[in-house]
Formats: sequence, structure tokens, C-alpha cells
Amino acid sequence: LSPGARRFRIDLAYDGTAFEGWQVQPRGRTVQGVLEQALTRLQGGRVVRVRGAGRTDAGVHARQQVVDCLLETPLAEAELEHALAAMLPEDLRPLRVRVVPDAFHARRDASSKTYRYRLDLSRRGDPLLARYALHHAGPLDLEAMREALALLPGRRDWSGFAGSACTVRDRTRCLTEATYAEGPEGEGWFSFSADGFLTHMVRNLVGTLLEVGRGRFEPGRIGRILAAGDRQLAGPTAPARGLILWEVAYPGDEAEGT
Amino acid sequence: LSPGARRFRIDLAYDGTAFEGWQVQPRGRTVQGVLEQALTRLQGGRVVRVRGAGRTDAGVHARQQVVDCLLETPLAEAELEHALAAMLPEDLRPLRVRVVPDAFHARRDASSKTYRYRLDLSRRGDPLLARYALHHAGPLDLEAMREALALLPGRRDWSGFAGSACTVRDRTRCLTEATYAEGPEGEGWFSFSADGFLTHMVRNLVGTLLEVGRGRFEPGRIGRILAAGDRQLAGPTAPARGLILWEVAYPGDEAEGT
Repeated sequence: LSPGARRFRIDLAYDGTAFEGWQVQPRGRTVQGVLEQALTRLQGGRVVRVRGAGRTDAGVHARQQVVDCLLETPLAEAELEHALAAMLPEDLRPLRVRVVPDAFHARRDASSKTYRYRLDLSRRGDPLLARYALHHAGPLDLEAMREALALLPGRRDWSGFAGSACTVRDRTRCLTEATYAEGPEGEGWFSFSADGFLTHMVRNLVGTLLEVGRGRFEPGRIGRILAAGDRQLAGPTAPARGLILWEVAYPGDEAEGT
Repeated sequence: LSPGARRFRIDLAYDGTAFEGWQVQPRGRTVQGVLEQALTRLQGGRVVRVRGAGRTDAGVHARQQVVDCLLETPLAEAELEHALAAMLPEDLRPLRVRVVPDAFHARRDASSKTYRYRLDLSRRGDPLLARYALHHAGPLDLEAMREALALLPGRRDWSGFAGSACTVRDRTRCLTEATYAEGPEGEGWFSFSADGFLTHMVRNLVGTLLEVGRGRFEPGRIGRILAAGDRQLAGPTAPARGLILWEVAYPGDEAEGT
């Protein structure tokens, strides 16, 4: 660690459509890769590594993703933000740059994350939402879905909703919010907040809740999936396109007015 | 004209990003071309030609475009709509299909068209709006813009706002609405209704109004541009991406509840 290095927190938004997900890969354009390339260039070629609050899958979007990294740069926060805004592509935008204490860790320090999942409820699918929502034209049983959603909040093991690619052993997470609401413009929005999420957890929850909404699953099936921890009982994984990392919250963020 | 042919009105929505505009071209994917191919296939290979209410440029979107065409098909309206929904791509959706009197003409019978133009007013540009809005971060002088907008409605010659590609001789159109409003989510919306529009007219109006909003043009310049009919006095052509053909209205549509 060079003595001139400072730790930065960078808040980002992106359209996930043209990225192979968050994490750097040998091949393929990833959010982390494009961001690290820009920061490395800003630092005159000295390689920069960033730590993200959440690893979004290919096709998943972010309204607010947060990363931290060490940078050796003479630039002030606002100057760095301007430089990044000019260097990054249109589908990856810096929202805010700030210097943080060296101990800051984007993932570990997050107090909660919120993901939202958008449904396009129009009859034939709104072409302007095709990249950003799952089209679902049929009627949904809102009462059954709300009954199922009410079973979710709490601190529990989420193995029943973890994707097969999930490698973590401790699958206990505290879910604080699980809601569904339909707006006036023919859109439906799921919203989930937790201290952390497992691989594919939100997409598996949405896929299962849609089966409840269609009347294929009873609302109580949610309880059985949670109790058994058996992914086979859950519904299909909903497509990535409708999923948005909506917000990452940190202690003290609100006091700052962010 | 075969005796079995009926005239259909088809309402459509599309994301213009991946189309080279409305009109069929020798090369390039166009909305008219993709639609005619699907209808021709539906009719067992007998070529179908459609007439659109408006010819949108490359990159311009439609919330409601209307076409008419003669079709020889045994399918009922709802069946044809289903078939089209299955055949057309995700960025071109049928909204409604109905049989109309043979005299119906999508362009000539339209009583008014409405175009909207969307601004993304966020600081760094929302990546989820990049295809569908013009990013404009700076402050806009709303009072000056509204003063300029108030000069627009009326029946007049619009040569000052016509693009150089505009070939029509009679450039008189009746503009009935010209407004701008900012929403709570950091978006700005221009809305223009008229009995017809010239090539690039809306985009030239928006480009000019933004110069007024930035303080580079006085609101009264609008009057000079209209009086002189001189495109050189107007602002730049705003990018296609923010423009949406919002609505095409026909006499009797409202009575039907459409």
C-alpha cells in the first residue's frame, strides 16, 4: 500500500443488458472489468481492483451499486467523478464518488440491500420495457401472492431459494421486506430488502411467487420450501432482465442526506 | 383487389433503436419491412403493403403507431392479433387489430398525432433511460421555455422547423398543443399535438426550445423563426432517441373507448 493511496467509495448505475454480469472474467465485458480498466487508466496504468457490494448476474441492472477501491490520484472527489463520467460508457454511470476511511468495505459494511423486480403487465409487452421487465400478461392472484410474501420476512436459512451455483455455506440471511405492488401504468414491482442475498435468490423468489400468482402453487408452499430447504420445490428462476439492484444502504448514509 | 380481401387497421408499438426507421429500404431493418414480411407470410406469400400514419426516423420509438392494409385471410381480428404477436419480434408489438371500412386510410384519416420527447434530467444520465431519452443535466429556464412554447400553437407554415430532407410543398400544419413538464423522477417531457408534422419538425422544435432553456436563445426567437421560415435561425436537431410517437387519434376512436 503506497502512502499516497486513499480509499474511495464509488456509487454506480448500469444497464446490465450488454454486460456478462458484475465479476471480472477472462473473456467477456463485465461491469467490474470496465470500471477497473477506467480506474487503472486514471491511475496511469497501475492496476486497480474494486470490491462491489453485490455481484449482479449477466443482464441484471443496477440503480445503485456501491464499490470501494484504493486509488493513488491527486484528484479531488468531484474531479474524479467528472473524469469517470467522461471515461465510462453510457450503460455504466458514476453516481457519486467520495473518500472513505480505509476500513470501509462495500460489501461487509452494507447494512441492507434492496432488489426490485419489474413486471410489464401490458397485453402484448411494451417494447420500451423489453430490456427492463418480465412481460406477464395474464391475471395474477394478488391476494395469494401477498399471503405468500407475508411468509418471507425474517432471519432464516434460504437454501430452498439458492441457485445451484451458490457456493456459500452459511445461507442464513435476514429478509426485512418482501412486497408486491402494481402501478397505474401497467407495471408490477416486487421489492426485497435483506442484509444479504444468495445467488439467484431474488429471481427464484420471483419465479415462485409468480407460480403462486398464477394459481399453480398454494401460498403455503413458500413455508414448505423454506422448511425443507429444497430448491426442487420452488418455481423457475425468473429472467435477469427484470431485476434491478435498487439500493445499498450503509450506517450513517441517511444522516448525510444521500 | 381480390373479393375476399378486407382492410385491417393495426395499432403497433416499437422500440426504434434497432430499426432504420419506418419506411422500407433496399437494405436495413425497418418497421414497415418487418411488419410487411410477417403479414406476407401470414397470407401465404402474397405480398402485403401497409400504410403508416407517420414515418418515424431511425431511432424514433412509437407507443402507438397505426397502419392499414388489405389482407386476404380467414382469421378473425383476435386471431390475427395473436398470430402477429407470435410472429413479430420483441421490439415491435401489435397492440390491437381490427377490420375497418375499405375507405380507411391510416395517415389521411388521422385527426391528430401526438409526439412526446423525453429528457433525462439526472446528473450523470440514467443508464436505463439511455436509449429512450436525451440526457440534459444542466438547469433549464422553465419560464423562458414556456414563453416560447406559448408562441407555437396555431395553423401556420412550419418551414423554419422543417428538416432539409422535407420534400412536401405545403408546409402548413395546425399545432394544437405544445407543452413541457418535469416529473418527480427527474424526467422532462415535451408534448406536441398537430394534424400533421414535417420531417424532423419535433426534433427541431425540441432542439430550439432547449436553446431557449439554456438561455442561448430568447423566447421571442421562436416568432422570428416562424415568420422568416428560416431553418438556419433554429437550434440543432435533437437526437432521435428521446422521441416517441405517442398517439394517433381518429374521429370516433374515443366513442369506442380505445
